[in-house]
Amino acid sequence: MHQSAQGVVVRFCQAWERRSQDDVTSLMDDQIVYQNVPGAPMNGKVAALEFIAPILAKTTHIDFQLLKIATAQDGATVLTERVDRLHFPNGIVEIPIMGVFVIADGKIREWRDYADSAHVGAQFAKLSAMD
Amino acid sequence: MHQSAQGVVVRFCQAWERRSQDDVTSLMDDQIVYQNVPGAPMNGKVAALEFIAPILAKTTHIDFQLLKIATAQDGATVLTERVDRLHFPNGIVEIPIMGVFVIADGKIREWRDYADSAHVGAQFAKLSAMD
Repeated sequence: MHQSAQGVVVRFCQAWERRSQDDVTSLMDDQIVYQNVPGAPMNGKVAALEFIAPILAKTTHIDFQLLKIATAQDGATVLTERVDRLHFPNGIVEIPIMGVFVIADGKIREWRDYADSAHVGAQFAKLSAMD
Repeated sequence: MHQSAQGVVVRFCQAWERRSQDDVTSLMDDQIVYQNVPGAPMNGKVAALEFIAPILAKTTHIDFQLLKIATAQDGATVLTERVDRLHFPNGIVEIPIMGVFVIADGKIREWRDYADSAHVGAQFAKLSAMD
């Protein structure tokens, strides 16, 4: 079955909902470059997983809501508008976010997310204050 | 000539480079909803222009560099990854940014941009310090 680039991205977003490290990483290329722009890029799946693993472990539920999705003319680049919701035991962090995914051989080679770090940080600070 | 949604967005980005209020606003629907997410939406061209006019007036040069562009299957929704560069007399503000544009009848009906306000704010603060 042909696995379109857009299909890979949809499956990746769904994998986060299962909060399975194996499912999430199975769609990432070993050489993935993952960047929360304008932060420094994380080079490779191992570096990306250092960032991702605590999120999967500390949340009780995750929901990546796809608002818009579009594939560029190269057939490999997929752009998304999403709301990522991270549910923690003491509250929810809701992240309005856009992302670029570049797919090669059915895996995510590049992933760049754009969100307002101040807005996200304020929500995490509020959760910490309730600890 | 058929004006594709993607063509409208490309022309809109180019219009900013000319820093012409007429050129920029000519591609905006009167009822445009423009939002720097997660900020409050600006409803209508008049409200949007209140935000935009000072940028056009105070800059000496503007460059919206399109890194990626893709049109959704509805043919009306265009997603972009860009670097917006605002050149002021005392320095440049460089904004890594993604945006969603929804086109209707050749005009922009919805425009949502996603960037890191902390990163942008820090650059503006640095410029102010050099005044």
